[in-house]
Amino acid sequence: MGAIPIPHEQWAQVIEKDGGPISFKKIPVPRPAPDQVLVNIKYSGVCHTDLHALMNDWPLPRKTPVVGGHEGAGTVVAKGQLVTSVDVGDDVGIKWLNSSCLNCTFCMQADEPLCPHAELSGYTVDGTFQQYAVANALHVARIPKGTDLAQIAPILCAGLTVYKGLKESMARPGQSVAIVGAGGGLGSLAIQYAKAMGLHVIGIDGGKEKGESCKTLGADVYVDFMQTKDLVRDVKVAAAGGDGPHAVLLLAPQEQPFQQATSYVRSKGVVVCIGLPAHARVSMPVFDTVVRMVCVKGSYVGNREDTQEAIDFFSRGLVKAPIKIVGLSECGKVFELMGQNKIVGRYVLDMSR
Amino acid sequence: MGAIPIPHEQWAQVIEKDGGPISFKKIPVPRPAPDQVLVNIKYSGVCHTDLHALMNDWPLPRKTPVVGGHEGAGTVVAKGQLVTSVDVGDDVGIKWLNSSCLNCTFCMQADEPLCPHAELSGYTVDGTFQQYAVANALHVARIPKGTDLAQIAPILCAGLTVYKGLKESMARPGQSVAIVGAGGGLGSLAIQYAKAMGLHVIGIDGGKEKGESCKTLGADVYVDFMQTKDLVRDVKVAAAGGDGPHAVLLLAPQEQPFQQATSYVRSKGVVVCIGLPAHARVSMPVFDTVVRMVCVKGSYVGNREDTQEAIDFFSRGLVKAPIKIVGLSECGKVFELMGQNKIVGRYVLDMSR
Amino acid sequence: MGAIPIPHEQWAQVIEKDGGPISFKKIPVPRPAPDQVLVNIKYSGVCHTDLHALMNDWPLPRKTPVVGGHEGAGTVVAKGQLVTSVDVGDDVGIKWLNSSCLNCTFCMQADEPLCPHAELSGYTVDGTFQQYAVANALHVARIPKGTDLAQIAPILCAGLTVYKGLKESMARPGQSVAIVGAGGGLGSLAIQYAKAMGLHVIGIDGGKEKGESCKTLGADVYVDFMQTKDLVRDVKVAAAGGDGPHAVLLLAPQEQPFQQATSYVRSKGVVVCIGLPAHARVSMPVFDTVVRMVCVKGSYVGNREDTQEAIDFFSRGLVKAPIKIVGLSECGKVFELMGQNKIVGRYVLDMSR
Amino acid sequence: MGAIPIPHEQWAQVIEKDGGPISFKKIPVPRPAPDQVLVNIKYSGVCHTDLHALMNDWPLPRKTPVVGGHEGAGTVVAKGQLVTSVDVGDDVGIKWLNSSCLNCTFCMQADEPLCPHAELSGYTVDGTFQQYAVANALHVARIPKGTDLAQIAPILCAGLTVYKGLKESMARPGQSVAIVGAGGGLGSLAIQYAKAMGLHVIGIDGGKEKGESCKTLGADVYVDFMQTKDLVRDVKVAAAGGDGPHAVLLLAPQEQPFQQATSYVRSKGVVVCIGLPAHARVSMPVFDTVVRMVCVKGSYVGNREDTQEAIDFFSRGLVKAPIKIVGLSECGKVFELMGQNKIVGRYVLDMSR
Repeated sequence: MGAIPIPHEQWAQVIEKDGGPISFKKIPVPRPAPDQVLVNIKYSGVCHTDLHALMNDWPLPRKTPVVGGHEGAGTVVAKGQLVTSVDVGDDVGIKWLNSSCLNCTFCMQADEPLCPHAELSGYTVDGTFQQYAVANALHVARIPKGTDLAQIAPILCAGLTVYKGLKESMARPGQSVAIVGAGGGLGSLAIQYAKAMGLHVIGIDGGKEKGESCKTLGADVYVDFMQTKDLVRDVKVAAAGGDGPHAVLLLAPQEQPFQQATSYVRSKGVVVCIGLPAHARVSMPVFDTVVRMVCVKGSYVGNREDTQEAIDFFSRGLVKAPIKIVGLSECGKVFELMGQNKIVGRYVLDMSR
Repeated sequence: MGAIPIPHEQWAQVIEKDGGPISFKKIPVPRPAPDQVLVNIKYSGVCHTDLHALMNDWPLPRKTPVVGGHEGAGTVVAKGQLVTSVDVGDDVGIKWLNSSCLNCTFCMQADEPLCPHAELSGYTVDGTFQQYAVANALHVARIPKGTDLAQIAPILCAGLTVYKGLKESMARPGQSVAIVGAGGGLGSLAIQYAKAMGLHVIGIDGGKEKGESCKTLGADVYVDFMQTKDLVRDVKVAAAGGDGPHAVLLLAPQEQPFQQATSYVRSKGVVVCIGLPAHARVSMPVFDTVVRMVCVKGSYVGNREDTQEAIDFFSRGLVKAPIKIVGLSECGKVFELMGQNKIVGRYVLDMSR
Repeated sequence: MGAIPIPHEQWAQVIEKDGGPISFKKIPVPRPAPDQVLVNIKYSGVCHTDLHALMNDWPLPRKTPVVGGHEGAGTVVAKGQLVTSVDVGDDVGIKWLNSSCLNCTFCMQADEPLCPHAELSGYTVDGTFQQYAVANALHVARIPKGTDLAQIAPILCAGLTVYKGLKESMARPGQSVAIVGAGGGLGSLAIQYAKAMGLHVIGIDGGKEKGESCKTLGADVYVDFMQTKDLVRDVKVAAAGGDGPHAVLLLAPQEQPFQQATSYVRSKGVVVCIGLPAHARVSMPVFDTVVRMVCVKGSYVGNREDTQEAIDFFSRGLVKAPIKIVGLSECGKVFELMGQNKIVGRYVLDMSR
Repeated sequence: MGAIPIPHEQWAQVIEKDGGPISFKKIPVPRPAPDQVLVNIKYSGVCHTDLHALMNDWPLPRKTPVVGGHEGAGTVVAKGQLVTSVDVGDDVGIKWLNSSCLNCTFCMQADEPLCPHAELSGYTVDGTFQQYAVANALHVARIPKGTDLAQIAPILCAGLTVYKGLKESMARPGQSVAIVGAGGGLGSLAIQYAKAMGLHVIGIDGGKEKGESCKTLGADVYVDFMQTKDLVRDVKVAAAGGDGPHAVLLLAPQEQPFQQATSYVRSKGVVVCIGLPAHARVSMPVFDTVVRMVCVKGSYVGNREDTQEAIDFFSRGLVKAPIKIVGLSECGKVFELMGQNKIVGRYVLDMSR
């Protein structure tokens, strides 16, 4: 253990009851196991997933009580005896994947998000809505010295998720990708990653304001589903050659686009499901799927290497998330706004207040 | 043109009316264009697609009248002036893809089945239910000298289709594949190709007899959907490690398996749609698709290289289709049996009678 | 045939004797075969390969006499009776691959540059150093209406070649590539394509001037082999993490870099050979190759789809080649300069003078 | 820790002096660290690499003294407090990779054999020529209950190495692979894996006896370099179509095949270097490499998932290594025979004597 003084108690936002409200209270500071680090969290993003954790409305068992949060950036203040990969004083991120077994068939192929023994921050184990959090040392994201920890927080989940989705889309530089929900929080990051990856970007969302935001962030074309008379045709035409985009990223929290995307994706194209509208199904006609050889796949958060790559794009200044910083104590208000669908951009909690 | 005498008239089975019956009649022998060959068809398989052509119940425009058939094996008897790739006297196969533009973005990437200008044998152009048929010389399958032309006929479509599906499944030797509809015509070929490709095969179908047939052809496990109390569990357990098969091939002509396959495929596994039940949709829950990173894709007939590979497996004795040979004149009766779902194995028409 | 008047005679630069000089003379205008187009060449780039054709110093048989050139951009003025993919009046490019069989195992997999029956412009068939040239209609590059035909000429070979090399390098957006010979004609295009593909670029060449040019074109780092005390170390350090670049493109016309590149490429990285120094060998120690799992591969010109993609990057304004335009009659002088290694950028011949 | 009584002392074969002889002596039984297991080794294969360790003639620093051996199969008798992936009583294998950091860019992409912090059994840490050995719990191979531990020992290194090489060759079922050194220990395993993976196998080695052995194990063709007048032509012809094999595995301990393999591999084929002849270089002409787009790569031992896959082929009875069992005390004699090139098949040491 290092020499940094660590308090015994700390402030945290704790889910104690399904549906909330979330409790802002003092709890003990955890101690790292031999293979863990203790991180003094400085900032933590608030993600839609945190609201699902609060509501407990996903088909995935959650621990109770649990400290929420999984986009935490901070500094290592202590580590277990076996930890050699990280040092006290390093900046790191605690993400959705708090740990995994590193030994199952998925972990052994670097697909650790699929590990059946994975522990999830703010869900199956305590997360980052606290001043001191623990995570498996092999799973924390490494953050370069000097990084703005508030700015990078949303990269640890939102950024990673869309970057991974773009990799899974198999779209190569010069090819085109349609981003459904391009005007939202995930979407604005997706546009920037896609441009940095050399892709032609078709943003799809509703309203003029979102269109302007998409264009500013780099979208080559914007299709407004509130204005278009024929969305399918407009998206097809927006891709080079008029054959439709090579890939589609579904970030929307509604079900309808999940039923529609295969209509405009190019033959042999890839539709990537990322958003998680509750109780939704993705579906498409068998005939068209077969004769056009369309592919629909899901993409979850990335693995550890994907994380470092997503961070690297951020560090090179190629992507940034518009954030609003509020104190940890205001987490409950953020959830309220989120429940009312009133959030634009990303809220980040400052742990010091 | 070669020196083989070619008649002016020939027997053919012609679709003149949606729903049939198909007409057995004399029609003129076609002449090859400069880039075509004229093939003296010896044998032609009868495929379920031919019945769809007769019924005209697919969302794909069909020519009328049209000579049916797209699994024809025979001998080149004449060729256009530009043809250098094939000689008079060569044995070749005419398949579903009669020609394609060879110049669109799909053709230029060897995805010619996706060519928007493709001509389809027995559907948009006259097919192989006639004694002399034409096809683009660059698209005929090359058949090694000495091959039994009746035996190879079903390989030209059924064999190719399942072989391509197995390639698209991305399953590697040593991994496992579930074949839904394993006891049918496509299924029996799929089992053999899968075994020759080093895969662990889980056959899924209904009834004891089909189970025995699957086992005989090489299936490692048979799951009988008529007997099992929990199909999903049984299929998962049948794959090494109990995580479910790496791939699923959907060959069934019913819709239900298309809704169910993602439940038992392994995380990050691939479900390949091949069968074409009328008006069916494939669907799956978004949540599970995302967090398990499941992939669902369609696979159509293979390209020209796939065709030669599928034939090569046949030529090396690794796959064979159980066939029944009847005369060309009996094509109508074969359709009747097919409509009544009474066909086991593959009917092949002998053009000489 | 279209209605555009076509002369019977034209000016051309003809290789009649190994080693030159090349003859500027009048020759008949060729007529297109049924599957060919006749192109009124407006501009043709001059490539190092043309000098090799003149010298006949490659282990590849050349036709004599032969009209040189393989980077020709012009307008279709006539076409054979079977041609449907291109129209009279279309702008097209004639490239190194004048035609291929489209039917061998390589062509059927979209690897037509490997076709054993390929015809090569300006080498095995007459090329683009003439006012009217023929090529197989399925092989001409399609050039968007309104393109500057002088500017695009070098893309048809030099641009395509480096773009294909970058694809073959398997480097993904965000990864790093070292370009050896970054300051030359191929190199300057490679830097631009690499940046447009989202890669981190390490330019390697000799001299300050070349370094400035590399930086201007987008190279992130420049390593000057004339200044460095430890090239291998400098290149390794220039890649993120200090593990060396993920890929290396060897464009240099000297042998030494071909012996050295595996020393600095990252473990499991890819070294792509593109340049063709005469009589050179590429070599590396077996031990290091094995335990670091290094890959060395050759990349030739791209296929037809690669060509369209390379053009698309140009059309979107992402790459441009610095060219000097001189008259067709001055081709001999260009060869002289080339033989003296005095060429910077690319010479393009104007066919009208 | 479990309840199995563990002695304080044990027999081991220890390298104390470069060049040998190896010392058979009593040493203390090691204790597992919190993330390690202690394995009661029952059998250990003797590999050529062990001789290189003894001679210390590789450009890779070795520990002194060191217990040799890296193909050890045995039973877990104790484990560290953090180990949850393996239980006391489980059968496991200790292989070349004793541990790796699981946190570098290579480990995070499941390329842990490339980890710069990897520890190597019998080389940088004590290996399996002892009755009780330790290894990182996440790195031991899991061996199914009931497996013959003597038979599986050579799979843990020799089997894994050739299986990985075949995967790296990118050859698909139905394609062809030439195996250079097919009659040796690695070669005999490679033939069996290749056949189980659906490949067409061309064995290359010297002498009639080796030819018979290759054919018995499944090689489709045998090319005897001692008899042939034109090896390159014979190998090309032996592959379907006469274009040469899609892949070549270089297992030979001589340099010459490393210079020659690119001459007979198919265009766009892959040559995989696996054998490690001392001081050897692999080389090929640049021109041919480029215009035929040939690929040469190294393949090292596989990762943890490859290991489980290689074992799975063994467990399904698809491969077996011909072994000779002698006592641990006779290890020195085995090295003598090995040094004299007199070993056919694989020696396996029985730890109990």
